[in-house]
Amino acid sequence: MAKIAYPTISQRATFDSRHFKSPLKIALEEHISTNIFNPTETLPPQSLTAELPYMNPDFVADTKDRLTNIDVRVQAMDRAGIALTIISLTMPGIEGIFDPAIAVSMAKKVNDEIHNLYTTGIHAKRFRAFGVVPMQDPEAATVELERCIKELGFVGVLVNGYSNVGGESMIQYLDEPACAPFWAKLEELDVPLYLHPRIPPPDQMRIYKGYEFLAGSPWGFGLETATHALRLIASGLFDRHPRLKVILGHCGEGLPFSLYRIDHRIRHFQDGLLHCKLRMQDYWERNFWVTTSGVFSDGAFAQTLKHCGEDRVLWSADYPYEDYDEVSHWFDTLEISEHTRATVGWKNAERLFNLKASDAIA
Amino acid sequence: MAKIAYPTISQRATFDSRHFKSPLKIALEEHISTNIFNPTETLPPQSLTAELPYMNPDFVADTKDRLTNIDVRVQAMDRAGIALTIISLTMPGIEGIFDPAIAVSMAKKVNDEIHNLYTTGIHAKRFRAFGVVPMQDPEAATVELERCIKELGFVGVLVNGYSNVGGESMIQYLDEPACAPFWAKLEELDVPLYLHPRIPPPDQMRIYKGYEFLAGSPWGFGLETATHALRLIASGLFDRHPRLKVILGHCGEGLPFSLYRIDHRIRHFQDGLLHCKLRMQDYWERNFWVTTSGVFSDGAFAQTLKHCGEDRVLWSADYPYEDYDEVSHWFDTLEISEHTRATVGWKNAERLFNLKASDAIA
Amino acid sequence: MAKIAYPTISQRATFDSRHFKSPLKIALEEHISTNIFNPTETLPPQSLTAELPYMNPDFVADTKDRLTNIDVRVQAMDRAGIALTIISLTMPGIEGIFDPAIAVSMAKKVNDEIHNLYTTGIHAKRFRAFGVVPMQDPEAATVELERCIKELGFVGVLVNGYSNVGGESMIQYLDEPACAPFWAKLEELDVPLYLHPRIPPPDQMRIYKGYEFLAGSPWGFGLETATHALRLIASGLFDRHPRLKVILGHCGEGLPFSLYRIDHRIRHFQDGLLHCKLRMQDYWERNFWVTTSGVFSDGAFAQTLKHCGEDRVLWSADYPYEDYDEVSHWFDTLEISEHTRATVGWKNAERLFNLKASDAIA
Amino acid sequence: MAKIAYPTISQRATFDSRHFKSPLKIALEEHISTNIFNPTETLPPQSLTAELPYMNPDFVADTKDRLTNIDVRVQAMDRAGIALTIISLTMPGIEGIFDPAIAVSMAKKVNDEIHNLYTTGIHAKRFRAFGVVPMQDPEAATVELERCIKELGFVGVLVNGYSNVGGESMIQYLDEPACAPFWAKLEELDVPLYLHPRIPPPDQMRIYKGYEFLAGSPWGFGLETATHALRLIASGLFDRHPRLKVILGHCGEGLPFSLYRIDHRIRHFQDGLLHCKLRMQDYWERNFWVTTSGVFSDGAFAQTLKHCGEDRVLWSADYPYEDYDEVSHWFDTLEISEHTRATVGWKNAERLFNLKASDAIA
Repeated sequence: MAKIAYPTISQRATFDSRHFKSPLKIALEEHISTNIFNPTETLPPQSLTAELPYMNPDFVADTKDRLTNIDVRVQAMDRAGIALTIISLTMPGIEGIFDPAIAVSMAKKVNDEIHNLYTTGIHAKRFRAFGVVPMQDPEAATVELERCIKELGFVGVLVNGYSNVGGESMIQYLDEPACAPFWAKLEELDVPLYLHPRIPPPDQMRIYKGYEFLAGSPWGFGLETATHALRLIASGLFDRHPRLKVILGHCGEGLPFSLYRIDHRIRHFQDGLLHCKLRMQDYWERNFWVTTSGVFSDGAFAQTLKHCGEDRVLWSADYPYEDYDEVSHWFDTLEISEHTRATVGWKNAERLFNLKASDAIA
Repeated sequence: MAKIAYPTISQRATFDSRHFKSPLKIALEEHISTNIFNPTETLPPQSLTAELPYMNPDFVADTKDRLTNIDVRVQAMDRAGIALTIISLTMPGIEGIFDPAIAVSMAKKVNDEIHNLYTTGIHAKRFRAFGVVPMQDPEAATVELERCIKELGFVGVLVNGYSNVGGESMIQYLDEPACAPFWAKLEELDVPLYLHPRIPPPDQMRIYKGYEFLAGSPWGFGLETATHALRLIASGLFDRHPRLKVILGHCGEGLPFSLYRIDHRIRHFQDGLLHCKLRMQDYWERNFWVTTSGVFSDGAFAQTLKHCGEDRVLWSADYPYEDYDEVSHWFDTLEISEHTRATVGWKNAERLFNLKASDAIA
Repeated sequence: MAKIAYPTISQRATFDSRHFKSPLKIALEEHISTNIFNPTETLPPQSLTAELPYMNPDFVADTKDRLTNIDVRVQAMDRAGIALTIISLTMPGIEGIFDPAIAVSMAKKVNDEIHNLYTTGIHAKRFRAFGVVPMQDPEAATVELERCIKELGFVGVLVNGYSNVGGESMIQYLDEPACAPFWAKLEELDVPLYLHPRIPPPDQMRIYKGYEFLAGSPWGFGLETATHALRLIASGLFDRHPRLKVILGHCGEGLPFSLYRIDHRIRHFQDGLLHCKLRMQDYWERNFWVTTSGVFSDGAFAQTLKHCGEDRVLWSADYPYEDYDEVSHWFDTLEISEHTRATVGWKNAERLFNLKASDAIA
Repeated sequence: MAKIAYPTISQRATFDSRHFKSPLKIALEEHISTNIFNPTETLPPQSLTAELPYMNPDFVADTKDRLTNIDVRVQAMDRAGIALTIISLTMPGIEGIFDPAIAVSMAKKVNDEIHNLYTTGIHAKRFRAFGVVPMQDPEAATVELERCIKELGFVGVLVNGYSNVGGESMIQYLDEPACAPFWAKLEELDVPLYLHPRIPPPDQMRIYKGYEFLAGSPWGFGLETATHALRLIASGLFDRHPRLKVILGHCGEGLPFSLYRIDHRIRHFQDGLLHCKLRMQDYWERNFWVTTSGVFSDGAFAQTLKHCGEDRVLWSADYPYEDYDEVSHWFDTLEISEHTRATVGWKNAERLFNLKASDAIA
């Protein structure tokens, strides 16, 4: 267990004597772009590359630089008391490639670049990685998953929602039968999958017509991802593979507040509609972890802790879309016990990924 | 102000001495069907009539009976300590009629039947009503709105989301320009519009493929309705009509927990994307009220109070889809001050609709 | 109702876009000292003058200056967005005078000085006052109470706990029979009494032996005052005078979290032990208001709102013992709706004292 | 880790589908009386034996029976899903004996009877025990402590507040120098001390004059015990013995809500007043555990979790003063994740006492 450096009595004379910095934080929804493949630029059509098209040009330019600048990233980590980040390819990632063969070959190259530049690079002690997998070809994704974990030493994979399988409107969700071998391998390897948002597919955009920016904001992302997670649950996947570990960002994309209501209604549903055996809430508590990426609300954090249990909530930031200083300041001064701060700040991540935060800054 | 009957000391020997029944409750998401028009049966296609197609046959039969049985309804109100309900035509309502002319003529008949059977019927003291309006023809809806309030004495209108305008996939949201006169009249009359859920339109169903029941559950309803409310906000409607009053059910359809995050991201958006002048949260606090219909979560209730303020939250049940006994028991024993229980239970509704709960049971 | 100045869209680009300053705040546990009588210096023995004997000399000197410096006080109010303060004589006040005759005569002089320097002085628009009353002579206190309200225009009185009646260990609590006429007059005048802490009397100090500073800290103050309030409730005072209004500081001195447990045990008590007819919680909700003086905890604030109801909680600071900037910053950025911020920040005080915050800065 | 038996889908049709029974609960503020020594009857004067003198005769008779009836106790545990209880001698315990020599000899006999009747008796699998220690003679208490742990297999000791040392008003708190060897041994043995309430000593009763029942209720108990715990902290005890483990009941006797305010004021205190090096909150988080005994408030529970961290809160009931059915029903249906329910319900106790709940009912 990492030692907490309590302040001495002479350090007590600050405005809010309860709080001090937690220097061992681990963050795990932290995005990069690669030289070999840049999801924010090289994928058609640009309208599907999330929120950047709606952002101010200055913010866009700054964000794109921060997606690849490793030195700036490490300096920001230092300043904010972040010992370690688990990096991942930014949205929409490999999932946005229409041609499965290209997806397969590109995934390998991206993983190799991540391995070279981050997890074995000059700042290797400060980084771990989620690998990318070409879900357009689930068999190939399964092979690449195993390579990521066993050969490259990655700690899991991150998938940006649905995958394009041949075109803009031809999409595949992760509960579909073709993905079965991938999940079996994931359970066998005992590593988590981070289910990250992606902008809703074209046929979901009618409701946003005239307000497309809502689709490319936390609102559209959250609904798409949460519905995807509900599909996984309702499909019976977690009955077939009870040891799977799925991570959701943004305090669970709204699901913690909705599952009990869905369960409450499902009581009256006809038999056979759901393919899962337990209540949705039960899978939530057993198979899901959540991060706080992009959330700065004391109330949302408190509710998330309550619904998920303290051991399932992991602090994260969403760099470079969010700012490490802002997010860390919020968390470091949040009115919780230092024990909870350490549990959420790094200890849960240490346990889930078999890491040691203090090693990163030793 | 309604007098709270505190228990005498001799009534204190109950398990939980804090709680006692609140007999003056007002409920306002309470659904009926009419003889002239039954939204659960007469509208094509059945798959768009919400959750009933997924429910157990017994539940469906019981629910359909309770939608029209006024005596059973009043008995349930008596048993649960509900003085007054504001009833409304059940989902999808007039909004699901494809032919605008039929919608216009049917709306009038439905309002007349509500007037005869409920607000001037044998139990008239126990009922108020939200009128129906044929949004397929906004000019006609505006006329009917005025008739509802001025001639029939209704306290507002309830709209079930988008309206079909000519077919299953031809839909109109309330922020669209054609609806402008309707909103102007609503503000002039100073009465609220209850924006009730409706099952997502066909082009939104791809994400639910294989799991359609999710669309016909609180999940699908909530997303559709909340997005609709976001459209209203982003359109600038509440800048043009700052005194509009919109009511959302189900503790705000998830919006209270999301608005601050959307505002937080919108900071970085390009100018001109939004057509509104203030933060979304500001409109939320000024123009929206929420009911607790269908929610039995202590935590969700507490968060809703926190985000909306105690004066904007109104208790409701969602009869006959929910059970008055269950929902009332939850609320009557909820760990809040009796002052808050009275405020949420009936006083806010008394203020918003210019009512007096005690008159209903005098 | 005071108008809330929502920020325009151009003001949204702040770190936390949810929050902005509330410029109309009213504070009501704000202490002064007078020229005619200085409770922090002229009362024997000094060990009973609360926490100042334990504080750093610099803090003591600064605090003593701020107790009387009106210009500095108004500047601090300006800086922190406080429109109006209701000032009161600092602890232990008139209550610490051993000789009843001196108490009676000194109370008049103090009230006159407050009237001259504050409520009719150069900054009269920014101040209202709680009067002092010589409870050592309840008949005289009753007369002085009436003079305070009717002649001097004060908005209520503030009493610092028990009164010395003849010596250090001869004390009188406000529920004792001699005080009955005073309470009757208070109800007749329809103004609140602020029950402020005082350091525990000598016979309560055994438990603090070796740690006397705990008695002169929020801990000792809170227990003394809360027990005093429980005596008032258990005495049946609020059955005899159901319209009395009592204000407690410090989020209710811990009572909101304890009353339900006391009520829960009292179920099993023998008849006749309590002299009140209702549950303690019932009096709490009907006869008590609380201020947030000295509290900066999001969680304590949330619980207080929940237990007391939004209409019974009033923001306050505890100047000069606390700093207006610190306390205002905490409140102005607290994660609550702007509606709740206004209700707690000034509207409840406007209602309770029949004031208008905007008049103070017009 | 104990396996959670999730309900199958056929078990979902209950009113509140979220909740189900937790059958492995461990409770640890559960009181007994002994044949050799009955604290509720044999100690002078009766007015200091806590709340029983104020209770209804029926409640008293029933409680006294339940203090010794082991079969009834086990049946109540079975009914409420309590696998294991850690029993302890009821208030005021050995601490109320005026004569140190009698205290020493009686403590041994009581521990032997507990050992014979409970931890090696017919229901031995269902019981563990806190031993009693004669703090009137700290050296002897140290010896008896070691015997309790090493010879009798007890899991810690429970002390009922201050000890009488020669008479009614001659009392000793646990921070006094004489107790130093006892604490050293406790740390060496690595077992917890449960600091249980006792009615305030006579010189503290002035404030309760006319309302003595308040002293013999949760109010008086909580203040006495919390102040005792503050003495321990301020004395520097936890600097000298940083691995000590102290358990408080009743959600921490109000301390979690007050410590930050005390720390906040202590900033301004003169050097040397406190004998401890860290903030009070720091010791709280490191050296204290709390139980929920006697608390049935959702809000108090939530705040306790927040202030203490999920790993420091342990469910308990306070049998026979409280009812196992009532307390278990409250906890089993509390709106928390099943993970948190298991953590608080039994897993934290398993860890703190090195136990296995499932062994008790195997």
